[in-house]
Amino acid sequence: MVATAPKQDRRVAICEAVFELLGEVGYDRMSMDAVAARARASKATIYRGWPNKPELVMDAIEHRYGGSMEPPDTGTLRGDLHALVSTACRLADGADGAVLTGLLTAATHNAELSQVMHRCVYETKHELYETMIKRAVERGELPEGSRSELLHEVLHAMVMSRRLWQTGSMDEEFATRLVDGVLLPVLRQGC
Amino acid sequence: MVATAPKQDRRVAICEAVFELLGEVGYDRMSMDAVAARARASKATIYRGWPNKPELVMDAIEHRYGGSMEPPDTGTLRGDLHALVSTACRLADGADGAVLTGLLTAATHNAELSQVMHRCVYETKHELYETMIKRAVERGELPEGSRSELLHEVLHAMVMSRRLWQTGSMDEEFATRLVDGVLLPVLRQGC
Repeated sequence: MVATAPKQDRRVAICEAVFELLGEVGYDRMSMDAVAARARASKATIYRGWPNKPELVMDAIEHRYGGSMEPPDTGTLRGDLHALVSTACRLADGADGAVLTGLLTAATHNAELSQVMHRCVYETKHELYETMIKRAVERGELPEGSRSELLHEVLHAMVMSRRLWQTGSMDEEFATRLVDGVLLPVLRQGC
Repeated sequence: MVATAPKQDRRVAICEAVFELLGEVGYDRMSMDAVAARARASKATIYRGWPNKPELVMDAIEHRYGGSMEPPDTGTLRGDLHALVSTACRLADGADGAVLTGLLTAATHNAELSQVMHRCVYETKHELYETMIKRAVERGELPEGSRSELLHEVLHAMVMSRRLWQTGSMDEEFATRLVDGVLLPVLRQGC
């Protein structure tokens, strides 16, 4: 953000408007004026806070997705994986999935937007996976030296792919199949 | 297609123009007029062939991706998987990947477009996976009753995810890691 930010409550309302419109019409069709109208803010407020659409959208993504997430802690690796997949499916299948798919085409033409999405939605979640695998190693469920990167990539890919390509529902059956049929075999391949 | 189709060579040129523009600007920003200009066709030719943009794009997708593909046949399961991943990476990393990502956001707002993409890019490729797994079973590399659906979904998800989320390069190292670290463990989990 390069200009003067609106107060926090205005900012939250404006970010919400951005997300609603991204989900409804996608990035290319979303205008700054439509954001102002949806947030019941003046155009001047919007333009004072953000000079253009990319800045506004990237700030909103950073604000909503940029933080870390608490890893599940169910006491077993399988339980943790299942909880994580269920959370990811719920997010992807709901408003957040609509926001992200509303951005995907634009991100392929806009390297900066793509980097912000990658960092906020993917990179900032690495630590969560690290913690989960570390706990499984401490419990003796996985060998020392087990890595989390591949697990992270596979889980993310499978959940987002279901959402994008509509290759099936994102229900309990999918979560169980993903955990038992893909994630655990990937993690245990070295055993 | 509901109207009179142009001759085959005009049609090919028009489809090529559609794909170029989808890759460059995405679906929402692509206009029928731009397609006509790029294909050096008159607007009348375009509108005689296709009444509107969704029809034109869906026909172009059907035309380019709707066929089946010949499965690799290297003599080993690992070799076949590696050949398939390499082909998928080459397609996703090139012009075809640009076309598909240019369509993704629009497809989430257009159920018919989404169905055409799903059928042409995903469903019509099932048979290839079936054949590959059947051959591996015949060679004794996999047990009787091995299924191909999960393999197909994981490979598709992992390759498209790399392309979309830029989680890493799509090189030989990725192909090997995907085959040995994910696909073979998923297929052999029951062994």
